[in-house]
Amino acid sequence: MSIRETNAVTMEQIVSLCKRRGFVYPSAEIYGGFANAWDYGPLGAEMKRNIRDQWWSTMVRERDDVVGLEAAIITNPKVWEASGHVGGFSDPLVECRNCHNRFRADNLPGAEIGEGGKVILPADLACPSCGKVGQLTEPRQFNLMFKTFVGVVEGEATTAYLPPETAQSMFIDFTLVQTTSRKKLPFGIAQIRKSFRNEITPGNFIFRTREFEQMELEFFVRPGHEEEWFAYWRQARMDWFVGLGVRPENLRFYDVPKDELAHYSRGTTDLEYRYPFGWGELEGVASRGDYDMQRHIAASGEPLSFFDEESREHIVPYVIEPAVGLDRVMLILLLDAYDEEPDNQGTRVVLRLSSKIAPVKAAILPLAKKEPLTTLAREIQGKLRRRYAVQYDETGNIGRRYRRQDEIGTPFCITVDFDSLEDRAVTVRDRDSMAQERVAIDDLPAWLAGRIDY
Amino acid sequence: MSIRETNAVTMEQIVSLCKRRGFVYPSAEIYGGFANAWDYGPLGAEMKRNIRDQWWSTMVRERDDVVGLEAAIITNPKVWEASGHVGGFSDPLVECRNCHNRFRADNLPGAEIGEGGKVILPADLACPSCGKVGQLTEPRQFNLMFKTFVGVVEGEATTAYLPPETAQSMFIDFTLVQTTSRKKLPFGIAQIRKSFRNEITPGNFIFRTREFEQMELEFFVRPGHEEEWFAYWRQARMDWFVGLGVRPENLRFYDVPKDELAHYSRGTTDLEYRYPFGWGELEGVASRGDYDMQRHIAASGEPLSFFDEESREHIVPYVIEPAVGLDRVMLILLLDAYDEEPDNQGTRVVLRLSSKIAPVKAAILPLAKKEPLTTLAREIQGKLRRRYAVQYDETGNIGRRYRRQDEIGTPFCITVDFDSLEDRAVTVRDRDSMAQERVAIDDLPAWLAGRIDY
Repeated sequence: MSIRETNAVTMEQIVSLCKRRGFVYPSAEIYGGFANAWDYGPLGAEMKRNIRDQWWSTMVRERDDVVGLEAAIITNPKVWEASGHVGGFSDPLVECRNCHNRFRADNLPGAEIGEGGKVILPADLACPSCGKVGQLTEPRQFNLMFKTFVGVVEGEATTAYLPPETAQSMFIDFTLVQTTSRKKLPFGIAQIRKSFRNEITPGNFIFRTREFEQMELEFFVRPGHEEEWFAYWRQARMDWFVGLGVRPENLRFYDVPKDELAHYSRGTTDLEYRYPFGWGELEGVASRGDYDMQRHIAASGEPLSFFDEESREHIVPYVIEPAVGLDRVMLILLLDAYDEEPDNQGTRVVLRLSSKIAPVKAAILPLAKKEPLTTLAREIQGKLRRRYAVQYDETGNIGRRYRRQDEIGTPFCITVDFDSLEDRAVTVRDRDSMAQERVAIDDLPAWLAGRIDY
Repeated sequence: MSIRETNAVTMEQIVSLCKRRGFVYPSAEIYGGFANAWDYGPLGAEMKRNIRDQWWSTMVRERDDVVGLEAAIITNPKVWEASGHVGGFSDPLVECRNCHNRFRADNLPGAEIGEGGKVILPADLACPSCGKVGQLTEPRQFNLMFKTFVGVVEGEATTAYLPPETAQSMFIDFTLVQTTSRKKLPFGIAQIRKSFRNEITPGNFIFRTREFEQMELEFFVRPGHEEEWFAYWRQARMDWFVGLGVRPENLRFYDVPKDELAHYSRGTTDLEYRYPFGWGELEGVASRGDYDMQRHIAASGEPLSFFDEESREHIVPYVIEPAVGLDRVMLILLLDAYDEEPDNQGTRVVLRLSSKIAPVKAAILPLAKKEPLTTLAREIQGKLRRRYAVQYDETGNIGRRYRRQDEIGTPFCITVDFDSLEDRAVTVRDRDSMAQERVAIDDLPAWLAGRIDY
């Protein structure tokens, strides 16, 4: 049985592949890395682009009722005061008096949530790091927003924040977007942008990092219609992952119990994935009511409402928010696609990625590094690369070159051999079945177009 | 004569169009805006996506010698110490003792640069803001990097910086990228990412902002080959702008004189654009030698070199860097495309954008808001939108709907009329010539594919 059939992939296998092949590296590795930050290498950058394009295409371009936004990262700090983040976007932090490691109190074993969200820890709790008992401090609230200072004179500069989410920009720009795009309720505003949280315990590779990229939709509906739209988006987001080839048995809904909901939430469902470290959050779909809109209306004195021509009413819409981290989507796509199977050369590592996501769509391989094979192979590459991300590889034996492509998930290998010079045809090998098919060079673009999804 | 023929567009016309139609809004406008920050609305977000895609396609996907990177924004501060930014990335700042406004000293009239880059101002200089004479302070150096603090205990947290450029990540990741991508010299690493500079005087709409998006290539060559590659990239970048439809008469090269070059530069050419406020920088192409690589080698103790199999030598490459701001590219594309011409309804405002860049490629317009016209129009929209960003509009008379699309640069308007129900054909109107052509509905995808560039 292969790794994928038994669902036995480990984080180490993914981290190792990512570094070895140029998907993800530790950031500033020559300086010893930094605080769980990661850089995306050539294949990682392509894969992220593909994920963004898929999300944008599904959520914005193919719909009439969603438009895009790209708001500034650093904006007026009043936004974060009004939203409640300056006052309340914090986690309970404890420190060990012995080893000085710090932990999120609510994640420690035996932690209980008391009145007003206060975390109560068992008195005899051992430090998860040094093991010493009774050394943990009382939990205190730690704000997760990064601060910076805008302006040119210290002391007088304005304290600003790096955004912990993209959502607030859709709320504060609601009227500008609605009027300029002439949309009517229900409609949504979508954004892909970096967010920043000074997490107490980042970890698990790119699962939780202090800097991450969010893909968020704020979908505005008439009050009274929030339940149907919540149900709609909950399912639509699940379908999106399945459409990218994620195996349904590794996905599930987790409906957050009413008594665990954030105070502004009228309902939240997490889409969870079966990570090697257990089931965990992948995407959240939240029914936020008009909580955020009312906060900004109160703080700014601006209306932030939709004027309904028919009823002549100003409506403050309710909001449904599906929000997912791009880095996390990349992680689960890699985990879900990773496979190892025995073959005649030992082990074949293969990433069974959807062609929508694969960083390289096709590899062009001259059978030997010889003229005129290489010229013909370059010619084919030239024809395909205006449309597809393709790779040309002429070094090593053909079996080894196939393996290189399998490991990065390339759906098709196109081999140019000596017969190609006569019959103007090439051998196309399928990554998953390893079946080979002879295809006329002139038919290649159409052949690929029928097999590579966008 | 139209506005475009006389090159008489003003910044006000662009700012007004951008706000009116949803390209660019002041950030956090409901809170009075913030420090020259801007949000990109639905059309601006699409246009930025198109510019990124064009750059990535030209600079990465269609080349064998360039690969991509997406590095973390917040990384190890040692990077910025080694690069020289902590010590030296500063501008000379003066303040008026009377009105407390601040200015970049080297931009003031009569400023001279003395020994060691010191700025000397005329003694009788008037404040550009309040006009009072002799009130400006001595210039002092002001570091343009934004600071933040990473970690969970104040005082012990690490001071980190928001990156003022993307380039350093390509230098410090050089070895990881080179070995995992198996590239040989010459080759490049490309990146699109946000950069941040605490500018003393941001301004001119999106021309100079504190937060901006850079598209940078670091192209690594063998020492001795830097001049030919500098000449190559200088021209290649100019060709890229012309290929996007920018009028050559509004572009020029400005070769920075040797005595004005940054100390690490072996040559810099600015590509300049004729803005309404005069010729100014659009893109910089710099020959940086091995300055940056040697700084990081010295600071990290890591080799950062390319091993040449043939000569068995370790080569520290020289670097050619074409770097441009995405926001600035968007500004010049809008300026260059903006047109107003008299017509029978008064004035026709039209954005003569390349189809590569236009945020909407085609609009589908039922002649009347009536069944079965609207159903057929929706059907056509459904067929086109998997491939193209399209818009459906059924409100207002057809002339007015044409004008709406002209103003946002939509190359084609597809009108579904009563004859369409009989002949299964539509009228396609060209934005620039306003010529109309009857096209069979079944032929539309191919007809558009021949006319819309990607």
